[in-house]
Amino acid sequence: ADIMAGTGSTAGVGVDQELISAVPSHNPTFLARNFTSSEISYCNSQPLPPASFAARWAGKEAVFKSLSVISKGAGAAMQDIEILPNGETGAPEVTLHGDAKKAAESKGIGKVLISLSHSETVAIAFAQAQISI
Amino acid sequence: ADIMAGTGSTAGVGVDQELISAVPSHNPTFLARNFTSSEISYCNSQPLPPASFAARWAGKEAVFKSLSVISKGAGAAMQDIEILPNGETGAPEVTLHGDAKKAAESKGIGKVLISLSHSETVAIAFAQAQISI
Amino acid sequence: ADIMAGTGSTAGVGVDQELISAVPSHNPTFLARNFTSSEISYCNSQPLPPASFAARWAGKEAVFKSLSVISKGAGAAMQDIEILPNGETGAPEVTLHGDAKKAAESKGIGKVLISLSHSETVAIAFAQAQISI
Repeated sequence: ADIMAGTGSTAGVGVDQELISAVPSHNPTFLARNFTSSEISYCNSQPLPPASFAARWAGKEAVFKSLSVISKGAGAAMQDIEILPNGETGAPEVTLHGDAKKAAESKGIGKVLISLSHSETVAIAFAQAQISI
Repeated sequence: ADIMAGTGSTAGVGVDQELISAVPSHNPTFLARNFTSSEISYCNSQPLPPASFAARWAGKEAVFKSLSVISKGAGAAMQDIEILPNGETGAPEVTLHGDAKKAAESKGIGKVLISLSHSETVAIAFAQAQISI
Repeated sequence: ADIMAGTGSTAGVGVDQELISAVPSHNPTFLARNFTSSEISYCNSQPLPPASFAARWAGKEAVFKSLSVISKGAGAAMQDIEILPNGETGAPEVTLHGDAKKAAESKGIGKVLISLSHSETVAIAFAQAQISI
């Protein structure tokens, strides 16, 4: 029943916060299941890898919320939501794979904007899914 | 003096955070004044009602900010900003009533997107008001 | 390679959080370098100037992120991102000056929406850069 919106309009938004200490970034199984190898390399290259992993984890949750798909609980493939720095600006960018990509395409979502932030203890993220198809 | 933007463009954004312990969700008068009966039933059915009430309270504040209306202080009717889960996805959705609805309509705002998040201690919310009339 | 989006679509988003105690708002040199005189007057007129300065600082960071420009590190002129209350509603509004204005114009960004929030200890901000040229 939604009014059809044009290209560039927002399909959904997502916000998330994570305690950095609560994200098990020291656990290789957790990392391998939820992060791509490019994400793991990037986070490990940063000054504070636990903060980088936590920010990215909050980012994946925020992107997931912005897609407004039916939750699969533990089965949600967070690896399908990849967040890497833009080569030129360093700003984080979202690439969707697999089921996340299919879900986005089925809703006409062509791009998800993301921003991440962390303090010493907390990571927060905001995502905005945009119609572009 | 704003450039007129098309359907789907953003009229305003709002962010808010609340300490869960600072939202008096144990106070029936506070709840009855600020939440609809559907919101109260929903929050009480959640695993952590105080966190759910605080997240929704942050959400109402964020929606209020996104509408950019002139503040009425204590008189702002937060009950007119109702946030309930979508029946299919469970994602929170905003329904405006009364003065909040009138204010939105007067600005051409047809929809307000919302996302909520809480940790053990803090609830945060983001809202985006969209032009659609 | 981005699909061209219409007027009103979002060019970028930015989120930031700051510990209020970590923003040196008692330091006149820091303030004079990063805030305009109007911002300083406004924050000093508020009930809790340190919270107001921290929220505005988070806001400047969020706006900077939303512009997705190449970071200049310490050289980024935060004074060029001015955030003042709207005369009618009191809601914060962004005015860009200098290099920030040029960067926005080069990307077709005509307006940056902002929202600020602070608790007793933490300030958060969200910014959304909109295409309008």
